[in-house]
Amino acid sequence: MRERMKSEPNEVVCKYLFEPAIMEDNEHSFDNMCLINMAHAMMLDKEGIIPHDEAARLFKGLIDMYERGSGALKLDPKFEDYYFNVEKNLIADIGIEVGGRLHTARSRNDLHSTLARMNIRDRVIKLIPMVLELRSILLRLSEENREVFLTGYTHMQPAQPISLAHYFTAIGGALERDYERLEAALGRLNKSTLGGGAFAGTSFDIDREYVADRLGFSGIVANSLDAIASRDYLLELVSAFSILGSNINRTAGDLYIWATDEFGYVEVDDSVAACSSIMPQKKNPITLEHVKAKSSHLAGAFVSIFSTLKGIPYGHCRDVGSESYRMFWQAADELEAILALFNVTLSTIKIKPENMEKKAAGNFSAVTDLADELVKTRDMPFRIAHQIVGNIVRKCLERGIRSDDISSDMVDEAALEVTGKSIGWSEEYTREVLTPEHSVRAKKSLGSPSPTRCSQMIVELDGRLESDKRRFHEAIESIESAKRGLKKDVLRILNERQCR
Amino acid sequence: MRERMKSEPNEVVCKYLFEPAIMEDNEHSFDNMCLINMAHAMMLDKEGIIPHDEAARLFKGLIDMYERGSGALKLDPKFEDYYFNVEKNLIADIGIEVGGRLHTARSRNDLHSTLARMNIRDRVIKLIPMVLELRSILLRLSEENREVFLTGYTHMQPAQPISLAHYFTAIGGALERDYERLEAALGRLNKSTLGGGAFAGTSFDIDREYVADRLGFSGIVANSLDAIASRDYLLELVSAFSILGSNINRTAGDLYIWATDEFGYVEVDDSVAACSSIMPQKKNPITLEHVKAKSSHLAGAFVSIFSTLKGIPYGHCRDVGSESYRMFWQAADELEAILALFNVTLSTIKIKPENMEKKAAGNFSAVTDLADELVKTRDMPFRIAHQIVGNIVRKCLERGIRSDDISSDMVDEAALEVTGKSIGWSEEYTREVLTPEHSVRAKKSLGSPSPTRCSQMIVELDGRLESDKRRFHEAIESIESAKRGLKKDVLRILNERQCR
Amino acid sequence: MRERMKSEPNEVVCKYLFEPAIMEDNEHSFDNMCLINMAHAMMLDKEGIIPHDEAARLFKGLIDMYERGSGALKLDPKFEDYYFNVEKNLIADIGIEVGGRLHTARSRNDLHSTLARMNIRDRVIKLIPMVLELRSILLRLSEENREVFLTGYTHMQPAQPISLAHYFTAIGGALERDYERLEAALGRLNKSTLGGGAFAGTSFDIDREYVADRLGFSGIVANSLDAIASRDYLLELVSAFSILGSNINRTAGDLYIWATDEFGYVEVDDSVAACSSIMPQKKNPITLEHVKAKSSHLAGAFVSIFSTLKGIPYGHCRDVGSESYRMFWQAADELEAILALFNVTLSTIKIKPENMEKKAAGNFSAVTDLADELVKTRDMPFRIAHQIVGNIVRKCLERGIRSDDISSDMVDEAALEVTGKSIGWSEEYTREVLTPEHSVRAKKSLGSPSPTRCSQMIVELDGRLESDKRRFHEAIESIESAKRGLKKDVLRILNERQCR
Amino acid sequence: MRERMKSEPNEVVCKYLFEPAIMEDNEHSFDNMCLINMAHAMMLDKEGIIPHDEAARLFKGLIDMYERGSGALKLDPKFEDYYFNVEKNLIADIGIEVGGRLHTARSRNDLHSTLARMNIRDRVIKLIPMVLELRSILLRLSEENREVFLTGYTHMQPAQPISLAHYFTAIGGALERDYERLEAALGRLNKSTLGGGAFAGTSFDIDREYVADRLGFSGIVANSLDAIASRDYLLELVSAFSILGSNINRTAGDLYIWATDEFGYVEVDDSVAACSSIMPQKKNPITLEHVKAKSSHLAGAFVSIFSTLKGIPYGHCRDVGSESYRMFWQAADELEAILALFNVTLSTIKIKPENMEKKAAGNFSAVTDLADELVKTRDMPFRIAHQIVGNIVRKCLERGIRSDDISSDMVDEAALEVTGKSIGWSEEYTREVLTPEHSVRAKKSLGSPSPTRCSQMIVELDGRLESDKRRFHEAIESIESAKRGLKKDVLRILNERQCR
Repeated sequence: MRERMKSEPNEVVCKYLFEPAIMEDNEHSFDNMCLINMAHAMMLDKEGIIPHDEAARLFKGLIDMYERGSGALKLDPKFEDYYFNVEKNLIADIGIEVGGRLHTARSRNDLHSTLARMNIRDRVIKLIPMVLELRSILLRLSEENREVFLTGYTHMQPAQPISLAHYFTAIGGALERDYERLEAALGRLNKSTLGGGAFAGTSFDIDREYVADRLGFSGIVANSLDAIASRDYLLELVSAFSILGSNINRTAGDLYIWATDEFGYVEVDDSVAACSSIMPQKKNPITLEHVKAKSSHLAGAFVSIFSTLKGIPYGHCRDVGSESYRMFWQAADELEAILALFNVTLSTIKIKPENMEKKAAGNFSAVTDLADELVKTRDMPFRIAHQIVGNIVRKCLERGIRSDDISSDMVDEAALEVTGKSIGWSEEYTREVLTPEHSVRAKKSLGSPSPTRCSQMIVELDGRLESDKRRFHEAIESIESAKRGLKKDVLRILNERQCR
Repeated sequence: MRERMKSEPNEVVCKYLFEPAIMEDNEHSFDNMCLINMAHAMMLDKEGIIPHDEAARLFKGLIDMYERGSGALKLDPKFEDYYFNVEKNLIADIGIEVGGRLHTARSRNDLHSTLARMNIRDRVIKLIPMVLELRSILLRLSEENREVFLTGYTHMQPAQPISLAHYFTAIGGALERDYERLEAALGRLNKSTLGGGAFAGTSFDIDREYVADRLGFSGIVANSLDAIASRDYLLELVSAFSILGSNINRTAGDLYIWATDEFGYVEVDDSVAACSSIMPQKKNPITLEHVKAKSSHLAGAFVSIFSTLKGIPYGHCRDVGSESYRMFWQAADELEAILALFNVTLSTIKIKPENMEKKAAGNFSAVTDLADELVKTRDMPFRIAHQIVGNIVRKCLERGIRSDDISSDMVDEAALEVTGKSIGWSEEYTREVLTPEHSVRAKKSLGSPSPTRCSQMIVELDGRLESDKRRFHEAIESIESAKRGLKKDVLRILNERQCR
Repeated sequence: MRERMKSEPNEVVCKYLFEPAIMEDNEHSFDNMCLINMAHAMMLDKEGIIPHDEAARLFKGLIDMYERGSGALKLDPKFEDYYFNVEKNLIADIGIEVGGRLHTARSRNDLHSTLARMNIRDRVIKLIPMVLELRSILLRLSEENREVFLTGYTHMQPAQPISLAHYFTAIGGALERDYERLEAALGRLNKSTLGGGAFAGTSFDIDREYVADRLGFSGIVANSLDAIASRDYLLELVSAFSILGSNINRTAGDLYIWATDEFGYVEVDDSVAACSSIMPQKKNPITLEHVKAKSSHLAGAFVSIFSTLKGIPYGHCRDVGSESYRMFWQAADELEAILALFNVTLSTIKIKPENMEKKAAGNFSAVTDLADELVKTRDMPFRIAHQIVGNIVRKCLERGIRSDDISSDMVDEAALEVTGKSIGWSEEYTREVLTPEHSVRAKKSLGSPSPTRCSQMIVELDGRLESDKRRFHEAIESIESAKRGLKKDVLRILNERQCR
Repeated sequence: MRERMKSEPNEVVCKYLFEPAIMEDNEHSFDNMCLINMAHAMMLDKEGIIPHDEAARLFKGLIDMYERGSGALKLDPKFEDYYFNVEKNLIADIGIEVGGRLHTARSRNDLHSTLARMNIRDRVIKLIPMVLELRSILLRLSEENREVFLTGYTHMQPAQPISLAHYFTAIGGALERDYERLEAALGRLNKSTLGGGAFAGTSFDIDREYVADRLGFSGIVANSLDAIASRDYLLELVSAFSILGSNINRTAGDLYIWATDEFGYVEVDDSVAACSSIMPQKKNPITLEHVKAKSSHLAGAFVSIFSTLKGIPYGHCRDVGSESYRMFWQAADELEAILALFNVTLSTIKIKPENMEKKAAGNFSAVTDLADELVKTRDMPFRIAHQIVGNIVRKCLERGIRSDDISSDMVDEAALEVTGKSIGWSEEYTREVLTPEHSVRAKKSLGSPSPTRCSQMIVELDGRLESDKRRFHEAIESIESAKRGLKKDVLRILNERQCR
């Protein structure tokens, strides 16, 4: 088809562009290319754009190619791209009189643009169950750790006690939003662009919605130029990946800190740890490091795609049709690794409740409860209660006293200084108020760390997870059954027209 | 409240952190701070967490502060932040016994996090009508230019003719997806985090949903740690901005190229052009340049926010509570400028149909229709028709013939060479097939550039625009009426309790 | 100068583009604009391009404008930009016959491009001493902490002991490379583009090197198109900022972890800490958080500038001449804040050697030295020594023994198991080998943490710091004296020609 | 060496981390790993850290491994990484008594960090000649097109005429700065980190500078922690790549616009163009599109690396030691493709001087020269001359007159209107002034487009190119001869000690 050109492609062009693209497509695009060709041919036949008997011979060529598999194709980088090679192979097999009709009423542009959407759809469909699995693991960890109490931090300084279930349901909440974004992005991705032609549609009387339906799409991108030129769905997907990666990064970072010798809250399983070549004591939580780091590559991919689309026309060009995808695949690989590594690490992690509770007992994280208790039991304005407790804390720090050694006398002493009145709590009551467990159990507000509120959140998270799973399985079943049905119908027609 | 600290803040800290933040908040956050304080106080009163008579005095202090306005506040950077200053002013006004109760059952963390959501909500609500306006302008341009025919390009080389309406409805289609993303992001933003406390909720029996409702939120972020720690909504908003910016960038870039002397398809209005200090002939389409360039700052903001959140805990810290927003505001400013400048440029642009049609007539963009016509009228495989036309084109280029000078003889000559048979079209028919108008009108497929298909797309785009407008106006009315109701109710109670 | 335009600028254009740019320039560019005008006028006079007596009247107008200050200018956004306003003011003052000659042999393009380089030069010159100060602080901390021993970590797990001086000299080494990059970027920035005209130079016989010299530049950008179109220096500066920010981010992050209650190695000064509104015990190291977070905005700026330049011509346009700078200024502000906040935090930080040493004693960080010692004293292959120590460590973990309780018996037991031979070290020797201090002092290699090697590094870092300071002070003195000389010479000529 | 772990690595960890890393290293790192091992062993021998006879046996094992090649290694992902596999193979070959001594006085950390620097050095050394070649091509194009005149644009509107040599020397100037940055980055890369150990150096009396020298490094990174932890060189390299990519992007974009049918200034060679599957007339300059787009991936890589390093310690971890490189390699691949594709496109591009000159003649680009000529010949203030020419231009536009039809009468008419005096130029002179050629030849200033000034720039660019080439060839020769010498010396010693 390079009739207009006076020379073959330069070897540099073949080496850096044509050859790697053709090889990659043969590895990843063969199935979807075959499906598209069959759906298109079915439509040409249905609309009478090609005669029925030629259609049957075309079907036979297409189904033979499909069944022989990608390994049977003869590929030559000089033919520019994968589709040209596929067409050459088809024509070699069934002749130009029939094979030369396949490309009627379409262009490589709408073909490639739909092919990419199908390939990407396959990939997203592989990633989503991993996100669903992560949500399940978080739920299980929440359920198991409702009564494990630990320090909650702000500015990485001990702040107030929480339960471990509270931490994991927080992440579960974030993951729900990530899931919503992924699902919405998949929805906007899953539209057919076939029938867009080179960008100007076609003068043949085609049925775009039929083709879309046969390939499992939920609809079409209507305007033919928009169909060919737009790649906003790539940016949307990769930004959804990045945001998910950002949420996972922060969670992995927390676990990483908790796994230090100094915190000692968790320990990763030996099967996900690495050792040292010279330091015999080392057990390194390397999967958490890779999970954290790999999120960065997702944002890098966003920049790459954004910048690729910067300063180019709203039309077809290689920037759009080829380069815009490069870092999408990279991002999908990285996200897959993130999810696989994080899921295995999280599902085998060892929790150390005793260390968590020991730290929380003495690090002043429950003193805010002292102030709240003063407000409630002594009807004191919060700001004054805060001053009393501030006074107690200052004295503890001066005297080297831990928070589990605050006595009722110290409370009285501070209250006297601030308000002129002592409080009069019993020693036992004072100590009780200062335990992490009391602090967490006392929490009443919706969404707070108390076991009751955490149980409520777990129920809700679980309900939404189940309905998300159901909806996802319906969606993929609809896609898969379309693809199965397409092949079956081609074979049925072949049978009917007795040319097999 | 710095009781625990032995020294005042260092002047560097005041200069770079406290002072600019307080000044900025006083300019932008005063109203929403007052609303939050009133809603929180209403809830404390309703739940009996503070006595009704003290609540009334607190309401009075709050409404007085609101009515005196931000200018009446005494501000001191030494007090760390805006809320501490607000509370100091309140206590100075109504005493610590009442004013000291306002902060019961909450923290600066949930307060600031909700304050930011309200400020950002205000901003997004200002941006969305500008996107709706852009969609309207695109629709009007589509309607007006249904019968203006021009060259469509791939690889910036003449490809096939389209209509100008086809171009603008393509962009309109992209803008619909951008709108969906913005609307979804607004939905996830518009949740209250009040009641999250410092991150661990509170032991007071508060009503989070009541407060959310009074401030016009559509719900709450349930888990209190998630409420405080999460900023995924910022990344989602800025990615939606970036993708919108990307689509606008490409459109502005097309107009910019079309405005060159060499293309001459459009001309920007004098009111949006700039001149030169030394070249008297210059008329520079500078708004298009700014529109194009400013999209870059949106992706920069995405990177900035993503990287701010990289490597930090899922908890509260200044990275989350302060730095994550910085580039959001920058991005919002840039997007506002993009929309304002693009809307004014697009709505005053001059279209030059004659130049468009002149180019399209001779630049071979209709020769694909020649191939299609051969397929249809001579039942020829497309690939053979393509070879015939390729043969014609090569000869034209060799002989220096423009495409509007292709004759029926040339068609026959080429067909003979390729297939051994001539075609036998009349001269008139051949010429007709090669006009851009014929090419565009002949297009039949859904979404193609023919006036019929464009009209259909215009009707659909218009319908969705109207329903989007309706939904948006309902959403903001619901927010605004909540805010009005809140102030009215505070005044009503004050009246009832006769302390005004 | 908008003679060619039939309408005034649209108000949206004034609001978003002209007005803010003019206001900003009047605040930041007045001095450099005056200097450029004087240098250009001096050159026009010297070359005889304008008559000497008119030149004198022009000098007077320019010096009067300079001395009246930016506040005296009448500014109108309708005139597009700052220079047009400046010229209008000049002509209003001294008439078009003289004032109309100022713009001979130049354009706004070369003027603005040099103006930006001067403004940016001023800014970089303000930042560099802050980097030099940081290097000084790091050196002081290194000197003071040569004999403070602490755990060095890999994968955030205890690895081997180092000295605190070793840590700070490591950062000092990184800062030297940052300094080299900044200095090189300043060198490439400090070239004049005056004489480039609009991009095509000029037909007047100007002296570009003279003008460059008078303004303190170290040379010119030769090709006039390159002079106007290039902004690679912006990317280079902001990448140098980003890399510096990255190095500081990691250091601040280490201090932030060390400041946790769990590590307890350092404590930030009260003057740079913030408190909580509800948790009286809190002391939050917020400056470290801002320092860490702000580095992100630098990478955001890099993306913004890169993407602004993506897809635009190598020529003048607003993308280059206006938008490319926007995020540079933001980045410079953020870097200034980073340096100011980090310097004050670092120079007031409290080191807690006892906590550092206590941790290091028991956390197995010195066991690698045990292996090395086996190699040295028993001529054992390292891999076998590593196995023996691995055996010891495993038993300690099983038996709950800390590393400072490893006995000579345990060493023998393990050696017997692995090699069949015991070692026979004395108890005292074994214990000694396992102390952090022994480990650090034993290090011999160049660049290692032993006090001797650290002292050597301190001497070298100090020497380079001093020579960098000297070179920097020569560079700014050369710029400042050029600017002073320019003004003095204009006044001298005015005096000589007696028209003052 | 996983003695301390109770289980083997999880299969997910092997699949996503260990296996791909080991396979990749075996493909790319084998040679440099062998060289490092030999240099380290040579040093251990020289310093007497291992006995000479054992050293000889170790040399033999190392040289045998080197000569058998990477294909002979037995690799098992369970051993975590490539080095562990290499050591296992070595010990299997020569026994633990000798092979177990290789890792004395070093760690995987310093080994891998130097290995990466060597691999990256190899890569940069492959890229630099491609940049030198680009500079050569630009110089040749400049030389060949000194007298080809074309329109120079600002804001993509015709501005002033330049020569094509002027355009290409502008790009040549930018490339010189890019080269400086690359060379500086290579300089900072080319330092050895061997002897850094895990980060704390070693207690063995090693000679770091000897090892560095044997491997062709120009020095060492002194501080052992800095040696292991720092990756600023990666950011520096990738920012240098990005800036180079940005400059090439803009140049490629200019050529792409020039290659449109509407401009028609250049045409890419058929060998680098692609065709269409349905539009027979198409010849698409796809290499320019890929070159433009690929620059985006470089900035994406910068973000990826920056963000990987964000929020991690200044120490060793997988983020630093593994993930920071991932996108470096991607960036290097993309830059290689950019340079290869751009060089072949540029060196075969067809220039169309006649089209360039035809456009420039009539598009008003020379009217600024009219103003300059008025200033020079009629001693008129530039601002007044500018008004006269503005007047002429407005009339031309109103009357539909092209700039090559401006007559002396029109000049007089405008001058009369503005100043009350006519000019009185001859018709011939007026026409002459308005030709592009006159405009370009008249330019006098340094760096301007006149043939004289361009010749001067060509000479200077050529001189610097030659000296850069010379310096580069010296640099690689010094590296290569070190590597050759190392192998030779190992063989020599083996011979001497007669154990081969």
